[in-house]
Amino acid sequence: MSATLQTIAARFGCELRGDASHSVDHVAPLATADPRAVAFLANPKFVQALPDTRAGAVILTAEHAQACPSNCLIAANPYATYGRVAAWLHPPAPLEPGCHASAVVCDDAQVDASASIGALSVIEAGAFIGPHTRIGAGSVIGARARIGADTRIAENVSIGARVRVGDRCIVHAGAVIGADGFGFAPDDGGWVKIPQLGSVWIGDDVEVGANTTIDRGTMDDTVIADGVKLDNLVQVAHNVHIGEHSLMAAMSGAAGSTIIGKRCMIGGGAVLINHITLCDDVLVQFRSVVTKSIREPGTWSGSLPAEEVGRWRRQVARLRQIDKLAARVRALEQAAREPGSGE
Amino acid sequence: MSATLQTIAARFGCELRGDASHSVDHVAPLATADPRAVAFLANPKFVQALPDTRAGAVILTAEHAQACPSNCLIAANPYATYGRVAAWLHPPAPLEPGCHASAVVCDDAQVDASASIGALSVIEAGAFIGPHTRIGAGSVIGARARIGADTRIAENVSIGARVRVGDRCIVHAGAVIGADGFGFAPDDGGWVKIPQLGSVWIGDDVEVGANTTIDRGTMDDTVIADGVKLDNLVQVAHNVHIGEHSLMAAMSGAAGSTIIGKRCMIGGGAVLINHITLCDDVLVQFRSVVTKSIREPGTWSGSLPAEEVGRWRRQVARLRQIDKLAARVRALEQAAREPGSGE
Amino acid sequence: MSATLQTIAARFGCELRGDASHSVDHVAPLATADPRAVAFLANPKFVQALPDTRAGAVILTAEHAQACPSNCLIAANPYATYGRVAAWLHPPAPLEPGCHASAVVCDDAQVDASASIGALSVIEAGAFIGPHTRIGAGSVIGARARIGADTRIAENVSIGARVRVGDRCIVHAGAVIGADGFGFAPDDGGWVKIPQLGSVWIGDDVEVGANTTIDRGTMDDTVIADGVKLDNLVQVAHNVHIGEHSLMAAMSGAAGSTIIGKRCMIGGGAVLINHITLCDDVLVQFRSVVTKSIREPGTWSGSLPAEEVGRWRRQVARLRQIDKLAARVRALEQAAREPGSGE
Repeated sequence: MSATLQTIAARFGCELRGDASHSVDHVAPLATADPRAVAFLANPKFVQALPDTRAGAVILTAEHAQACPSNCLIAANPYATYGRVAAWLHPPAPLEPGCHASAVVCDDAQVDASASIGALSVIEAGAFIGPHTRIGAGSVIGARARIGADTRIAENVSIGARVRVGDRCIVHAGAVIGADGFGFAPDDGGWVKIPQLGSVWIGDDVEVGANTTIDRGTMDDTVIADGVKLDNLVQVAHNVHIGEHSLMAAMSGAAGSTIIGKRCMIGGGAVLINHITLCDDVLVQFRSVVTKSIREPGTWSGSLPAEEVGRWRRQVARLRQIDKLAARVRALEQAAREPGSGE
Repeated sequence: MSATLQTIAARFGCELRGDASHSVDHVAPLATADPRAVAFLANPKFVQALPDTRAGAVILTAEHAQACPSNCLIAANPYATYGRVAAWLHPPAPLEPGCHASAVVCDDAQVDASASIGALSVIEAGAFIGPHTRIGAGSVIGARARIGADTRIAENVSIGARVRVGDRCIVHAGAVIGADGFGFAPDDGGWVKIPQLGSVWIGDDVEVGANTTIDRGTMDDTVIADGVKLDNLVQVAHNVHIGEHSLMAAMSGAAGSTIIGKRCMIGGGAVLINHITLCDDVLVQFRSVVTKSIREPGTWSGSLPAEEVGRWRRQVARLRQIDKLAARVRALEQAAREPGSGE
Repeated sequence: MSATLQTIAARFGCELRGDASHSVDHVAPLATADPRAVAFLANPKFVQALPDTRAGAVILTAEHAQACPSNCLIAANPYATYGRVAAWLHPPAPLEPGCHASAVVCDDAQVDASASIGALSVIEAGAFIGPHTRIGAGSVIGARARIGADTRIAENVSIGARVRVGDRCIVHAGAVIGADGFGFAPDDGGWVKIPQLGSVWIGDDVEVGANTTIDRGTMDDTVIADGVKLDNLVQVAHNVHIGEHSLMAAMSGAAGSTIIGKRCMIGGGAVLINHITLCDDVLVQFRSVVTKSIREPGTWSGSLPAEEVGRWRRQVARLRQIDKLAARVRALEQAAREPGSGE
């Protein structure tokens, strides 16, 4: 859609410097934007692209406005404001309310008249689909599951029986919510399955990435609170609780019964091992393994960056000998204390 | 369902202490159970919840029976017994035999009359579906694949041509069994695909987690023996053999041609690198990387737990200098041996 | 199919030593091949199986021909030649052109008459499916997506709107191409979604593994160049570029805006952290974490192989004390320099 800068400034609470009547209709990066585009500058690292931009307007802080050759939309938080402007200029395709003729909707499912049920999707018995919610092609919504309002379930998603997804959520393609947790009792050299009788409770404004898996709880529910964002290929095991607005980046995982506080950020590939608790505001860097509860806000790390293979091998060889190295230092200390006793 | 403690004790081989006529109808945790619930105590860590439980009965060992304020179901292995009792009190929804009208079942597929073929699933040419087996909505069973009896294939599962799945298996949503293994020959700066002509052979009582992938073998089959349990997002590459009753936790992986013995346990996120063999009864801890064959039962580990980021960085910096540290120790030793030669 | 060795030698440019009229009809491993089979010897590690083989012919280098008891197909690159011969002897099932009656193909989608559209698949509005391309059962091709010629999309694949896949590609089951990248701006303790407006551009001869995820770019496209091969459960984040003929093994990941050169090989479980660039011909070993750009061809490594748990724990304990160990060495050095100043 197209809008004047005046309209945008008013709608998104920006201070406008420049031509209020100028119209824009899309967003673009600073370096390649044309006069019909809105660009943004949030990270000072990219400031050198500012003087040459041809963007119709740039969303930025007051501090950078001087250096901007174009119209300015001054915002306290340019990146967040950019996100909102971009969403408004590039709205998703409008919903087509109703159930596609090829969808299989059980008689006793409750589908709001404003919801859009995609081709070849399945809405099982007793499921509830809220207003303005979209179920993508090929997705399966299990028996008595409840999907809130304004939620978007993409393609080939599997949502299990009795799972609850809130309002304004996005679940990307291939995600599986509500498979059995991994619970077995050892018995006679084999395993007895522990029935996974709980469900998954997902709050509002949650995003679940492609092919991410969230298991149902053993007896109680696995809980994903409001505003949580999960990237692709994330594993959330049974009985996990994730607090409001926490993030888990791609390929990270939370083992069974982990409790994650609010506003935590779990880096890509990081894993949280069983039954630990992270307090609010903990940042776990990519690829770390957290094995103990963390009781104070802060940043935790545990991955060794790769090195050229020769250097790496020498370090590993030394590390393998570190016990002996410590013993040699001890011997030297001993010798220093007892000068006469030397070799 | 509802049952008296007498019935349960008889059926599951427990010694009953208390009111044999008391009825229960569900399972619940010790702390929140009500008199209609069966709880259990397996891990002594939770024993402090025992004196206050309101459960109708507790499954536990004789050792803990004294401290139990309620009826006791005494079992040698309370956790396994709990699993069996829970499964019995909470049976899955009964199968609806027959093919859903929307399923696409090829003419020459053989589907047992007692099997249940879900909505919008596909059973390709020559596939066989055994008695009392359930194929979930949206799943695709490839040509000439064979699924045994009493097996449950969940939603949106993809099972490739000629794959064999045994009896009493559970395959969770989104799993892919029988995609091509990853095999390419380098040639002229590009790659020639090596056809993946084998299949996947899965025994009885196997569980495959959500979005887990098991590739077909290159010439022979990838083999998953009876009783193996795979968690979510596990990767099993071509030609892997996994022995009876072994476990792989979430996000773990076995590279091509790995052989895993019986009763092994591969922790979450652990990986086994190409062409190695693990003997029976090996436990690999979470997130470890195994690069050599393991020939004796035991526990292997290789992950560094995360630390507060400042401490972690100092350790990494020191590790990067460990070669120099070793040289300095050597110099000190030399000086100690030749006292006159000091700096 | 069946062919004489003469035909094979001529077609695949091999030098034939032996019976030109001998016929074969399948491939098999050296050790189990029968006279109707072609085997190969590429890795000298397997040479001890050569003298006893019963294969009808063996593809090998001239160097090993002497030791071969059977007919020889001598090739400069036996593994690549084997791959081509195997593909020719074991052709895939022929395509059945046309749309399965149960597929949902939007009126304005363009499906080539020679393409095969599987059961219960969905081809959304404006999508284009090229000649001789196969769309597997249950897959969803998004609006205005474009799939080239001779490409094979397996089952339950999700391809998002406007995604471009080239010619002769293979996309395995459960893959998700074109889900939103993971982009959020922090705002008031919560997150504002950054719309993901770009797409995914995939070249020719690309293979994408089962349940692999490739996100669409934020403003521009995520790009996978010709000849790239991605294994299962790989994560390719928004704005990543992967150069020609690069490989990513299972469970590896490239974080947002990573640029990978040509002919790179990323080992299983390795991750490349945000915004870095790898030049051409970089090999990253399994499970490494690359955090800085790599500007020269070479091999990088960063994973610590697992050890027996007792040894491992001692090493970790020592590593935790490495700062103190360094201080102790410093003290010894100081004492050595100032002999009179000892403790």
